[in-house]
Amino acid sequence: MLVGARQVVTCRGPARARRGREMAEVEALGDAAVLIDQDRFGWVGRRQDAPKADRVVEVTGVIFPGFIDCHTHGVFGAPRLDDHERRALGVDYKAIAAAGGGILQSVHDVRARPEVELAALTRSRLTALLKRGATTIEVKSGYGLELEAELKQLRVIRQLAGELPATLIPTFLGAHEVPPEYRSKRADYVRLVCEDMIPVVARESLARCCDVFCEPGVFTVAESRQILSAAARHGLTVKLHADELEGSGGAELAAELGALSADHLAAISVLLPATMIFLGKRSQAPARRLIEAGAAVALATDFNPGTSPTLSLPLVMALGVSQLGLRHAEAVTAVTINAAAALGLARDRGQIAPGCVADLVVAAVDDWREVAYWMGTDVVSAVWTAGSACPA
Amino acid sequence: MLVGARQVVTCRGPARARRGREMAEVEALGDAAVLIDQDRFGWVGRRQDAPKADRVVEVTGVIFPGFIDCHTHGVFGAPRLDDHERRALGVDYKAIAAAGGGILQSVHDVRARPEVELAALTRSRLTALLKRGATTIEVKSGYGLELEAELKQLRVIRQLAGELPATLIPTFLGAHEVPPEYRSKRADYVRLVCEDMIPVVARESLARCCDVFCEPGVFTVAESRQILSAAARHGLTVKLHADELEGSGGAELAAELGALSADHLAAISVLLPATMIFLGKRSQAPARRLIEAGAAVALATDFNPGTSPTLSLPLVMALGVSQLGLRHAEAVTAVTINAAAALGLARDRGQIAPGCVADLVVAAVDDWREVAYWMGTDVVSAVWTAGSACPA
Repeated sequence: MLVGARQVVTCRGPARARRGREMAEVEALGDAAVLIDQDRFGWVGRRQDAPKADRVVEVTGVIFPGFIDCHTHGVFGAPRLDDHERRALGVDYKAIAAAGGGILQSVHDVRARPEVELAALTRSRLTALLKRGATTIEVKSGYGLELEAELKQLRVIRQLAGELPATLIPTFLGAHEVPPEYRSKRADYVRLVCEDMIPVVARESLARCCDVFCEPGVFTVAESRQILSAAARHGLTVKLHADELEGSGGAELAAELGALSADHLAAISVLLPATMIFLGKRSQAPARRLIEAGAAVALATDFNPGTSPTLSLPLVMALGVSQLGLRHAEAVTAVTINAAAALGLARDRGQIAPGCVADLVVAAVDDWREVAYWMGTDVVSAVWTAGSACPA
Repeated sequence: MLVGARQVVTCRGPARARRGREMAEVEALGDAAVLIDQDRFGWVGRRQDAPKADRVVEVTGVIFPGFIDCHTHGVFGAPRLDDHERRALGVDYKAIAAAGGGILQSVHDVRARPEVELAALTRSRLTALLKRGATTIEVKSGYGLELEAELKQLRVIRQLAGELPATLIPTFLGAHEVPPEYRSKRADYVRLVCEDMIPVVARESLARCCDVFCEPGVFTVAESRQILSAAARHGLTVKLHADELEGSGGAELAAELGALSADHLAAISVLLPATMIFLGKRSQAPARRLIEAGAAVALATDFNPGTSPTLSLPLVMALGVSQLGLRHAEAVTAVTINAAAALGLARDRGQIAPGCVADLVVAAVDDWREVAYWMGTDVVSAVWTAGSACPA
């Protein structure tokens, strides 16, 4: 049993995303106790009412449900430092790609890099993310864009899922971009993804979800439909990277996907404020308007080497408040229960409540809101997953 | 002698700020050695050419000169969480002040809080800043706005300067705001600052510099001149917080200050990108244009409870690249030699060169540019000040 925390933020309630006003309804208990039974929460409430426990651990600070990073591209080789500087100096996306930068730089790197090296790099990065509170992490492939290199990324995720105390949710993103060798025969690449990659990925259980970059200039709505239909037929949960789809058939596709997939993930807006800051953009998603219109919002790092080399969900939460206009409570909801829902895991993750997986974060603060305030200063002092403290 | 680092970024050169193109000229030596002689650097160069050393320390990563945070308001009580949320929801500055927030909330807090408590809070915050690489930190008063409370803040800085391994540069900022009890008699407050506060601060050697918030609605150019003239007469180095002065007599005042002070600090533009991000602003200072026009730019955290609760110069450097359009090299210059120059310390700080104070930072990266890339992820793995490793 954990006791002594200044506050326990439970986020408890129904096992589903919080929409609109619900996002601000975060329970923060003072003088509380959290009972862990094996790898699950057994009980949470006022300390004076707590059942007897075999072992009592004193905690200093505030306890949160484990944070959930529901959108990362976490398996890659070298950082893209040149892209960062070129962009700072005003070079545009096309010129960066022409100079050998952009996503294809990471593709060449991943294709060439031995699996053991890719695993070592990814291990240290995901460990850093976990240390800052991310107990469940979605990790996409998508820097291979050929069967073997995509499988290599997914095997790295599977290996690390076995080694690290975090829960990793692997997503196949073979349709991240059309690789250079297929530029003049796009249909062949879509067929390759559907007929060669997806069946192998599904057969070897290397991914839980399938995602597609459905954007003008990347994959069309028709191509995305083709790929996600194949994924659904093979039992993968389907997702959609589709920020710019409005008016281009995206709504219809999303509706179809709802039909395709029992676990219709596109219904939660996953916002990525660190990406816009790293890119030097002056705009952000209309999060306040989305929430006021009754939407469910999640926040994620979008961790990747080109547009968001950020390994801190607390930084993303602070940017959620400062840049997106979220309340502190909404930022907490956005990385707990709503991020769980965005991964189809709301049934038993994202809250401190009996029966849920005992993932939690301790922050060395006096007031729970500080987790989304000390911008860029890590306040996470301890992380527990499946009922056990992670090594510091 | 330190050896084994992938690179040693020296920033060496003349003992003055780098202007314009010079800002990008950062030396990064491979296979180098750094010799420390007592509290100073004795030698730096290729390892094969190094003189014999009594003790050799193997370092992993990249070595930088100690970072210098040349602008903080580091002595305060509680964080201003309500301000953060109100601003996120679109409440303006005046309404925040009317609701009991804003700078006066911190003033009431500092006035009421026992010195020992203020010292404990400040100790943990400055320690966090040091841990992220800030070996020299300017710390302003300015949340007292009455003699005793201003002195209390400055005594806290003096106490911590004796305790912490960082160098703290205390700045008297009694003219941060007109306190409420003087709103109807501003001239009396200016007189109090000039005739009561400055003489005591100077006599007790509690500050090295004097700063004034010279902005429309705070202190006028005439009031600022009066205060800084008094400060100069008492031997304090004068500074000016004057972002919005253009066209209102600021240039003339700055020129006068140049005459007043041998150490004309206003000649370096100190930019504070984290503040704009935390405030949710969509604009940033025109850093690229400044540099291209030949200016010297420094970066600082502006650490304070209302507009920049940021304890990481590496985050500020990453924002310098992403948000201000700096090159990585320019961001490094901006927190080393240029920040030293902004504090009048360029003579022996801000570079790894014989005779300079042996303050250095080790970052756990492969390429020195990564220090300004992994946004919000601390890469600083060790800090040395005055020739000794700081406790981890």
